[in-house]
Amino acid sequence: MLWITLWKLVSFMKLSVFYVSDRTGITAEMLGQSLITQFDSVHFQCHTMPFVDSEARARDAVAAINLAAAADGQRPLVFSTLIDDVVRRIIRTANALVLDFFEAFIAPLESELGIPSSHAVGKSHGTGDLHTYTQRINAINFCMAHDDGVNSAGLDEAEIILVGVSRCGKTPTSLYLAMQFGIKAANYPLIPEDLDKQQLPSALLPWRKKLWGLSIRPERLHQIRSERRPNSRYAALSNCRHEIQAAEAMLRAHGIPFLESTNMSIEELSTTILHQTGLSRHLY
Amino acid sequence: MLWITLWKLVSFMKLSVFYVSDRTGITAEMLGQSLITQFDSVHFQCHTMPFVDSEARARDAVAAINLAAAADGQRPLVFSTLIDDVVRRIIRTANALVLDFFEAFIAPLESELGIPSSHAVGKSHGTGDLHTYTQRINAINFCMAHDDGVNSAGLDEAEIILVGVSRCGKTPTSLYLAMQFGIKAANYPLIPEDLDKQQLPSALLPWRKKLWGLSIRPERLHQIRSERRPNSRYAALSNCRHEIQAAEAMLRAHGIPFLESTNMSIEELSTTILHQTGLSRHLY
Repeated sequence: MLWITLWKLVSFMKLSVFYVSDRTGITAEMLGQSLITQFDSVHFQCHTMPFVDSEARARDAVAAINLAAAADGQRPLVFSTLIDDVVRRIIRTANALVLDFFEAFIAPLESELGIPSSHAVGKSHGTGDLHTYTQRINAINFCMAHDDGVNSAGLDEAEIILVGVSRCGKTPTSLYLAMQFGIKAANYPLIPEDLDKQQLPSALLPWRKKLWGLSIRPERLHQIRSERRPNSRYAALSNCRHEIQAAEAMLRAHGIPFLESTNMSIEELSTTILHQTGLSRHLY
Repeated sequence: MLWITLWKLVSFMKLSVFYVSDRTGITAEMLGQSLITQFDSVHFQCHTMPFVDSEARARDAVAAINLAAAADGQRPLVFSTLIDDVVRRIIRTANALVLDFFEAFIAPLESELGIPSSHAVGKSHGTGDLHTYTQRINAINFCMAHDDGVNSAGLDEAEIILVGVSRCGKTPTSLYLAMQFGIKAANYPLIPEDLDKQQLPSALLPWRKKLWGLSIRPERLHQIRSERRPNSRYAALSNCRHEIQAAEAMLRAHGIPFLESTNMSIEELSTTILHQTGLSRHLY
């Protein structure tokens, strides 16, 4: 036991991470996450501080960061996206390694473009114009109204229809395509009857060109289905194996391209589909 | 006409932007978008090049970037998140301003932590463990099953219930809370009958503490509803004014906090709610 504890102490360094932003913190989080995941052996404890948009809030943030530094016995990492120079200067006084993304990149951009940046807070993740907003919302609504084959009417409007067995990732992937790219994505299940007959659901026949398959490794499907209905026939590994085999055979027979979702996140699935289909995104 | 054209030529500089990544491109896009939105007067044309993970693909990317440089008569901007040194070196040969995010930040992090980074491609936006994946999917499924008040059973499981009039942004905000933070968010409409009686829907009475309101400016609501049902009573500005006034009065009377969504994106609404409620996120 002692050895295990010691080993843990040595190999897992604990470190506080702060994402500090004058707006949502989403950009700071994403950038920071993509950097810290490059250091496997460190245990990071992450905190987001959004809306740090005044000197008073900046000083509160510094106090919290310094408290963590004292508690950890190690100075934290701060990833920030701060437009305001004064706020940024205050954050810099914290007992931490402060990496600010605007500071690093705005200057080379200004010199490349030959114009000053607007220094306006909250430009990204803004609402955009009504047209863009509407396109995004319409795509989300379309996706919800055409989830899991609940509604075959209106599939002519779909830009893509994801097909696959239950729990292979169709719903979250469709939603992400709608939310992130404004794409009208429907999804339709392949149920045991379809698989036994090796026939596509009849509602999908007119839309063969828009179909895109999702598959998954049977072991993973078994795990996921077991979370939902433990010890059911539905979740049994043998049944998952049979369904996946039949689904892939059917997709191949119909010439429908498909992705294996097992080791892919929703983000990866969605961007891969966007890339491979050549669909155009409606949002940036 | 001539003057307008000339003015446009002078004030709107057109520039190609490339997001180059060895994986999804999501991080590169977000970083780049947050930077270029600081330059209002430039018209940026954005292209994402995901999965640039080999020398051959890097060379293809360079060819495309150089083609755009020649067509624009101006060298493009390249925002990249490239882990592999060889791939990055090839991208650097493009006729463009290349800002690589890992290059800028990995070195200071390595020196701070005193350990080398893993240099492994595709660490962020990965699937994570089964538990995290399941939590995210369960939150999304919960949200879909409790959208727009379709299902009052199971509201005890909700971590938050968004309430507001039709089209004020409840659905996309709930979905974003689920997708991004793994929060079980339900949403429930306030319909004209509720507003006339100034009474909360009875299904919500046991969950007063979990309610959070969304409001919107009547003019914006009128615009949004008109996209859906033009010239209807539902979309009429007078009706929107009446509904919003009644909804806000009711929320105030019941002591339910609310946000005005008019100038906020889905991302801003969701992070603000997370921040103000103190709900803990289940995903990072």
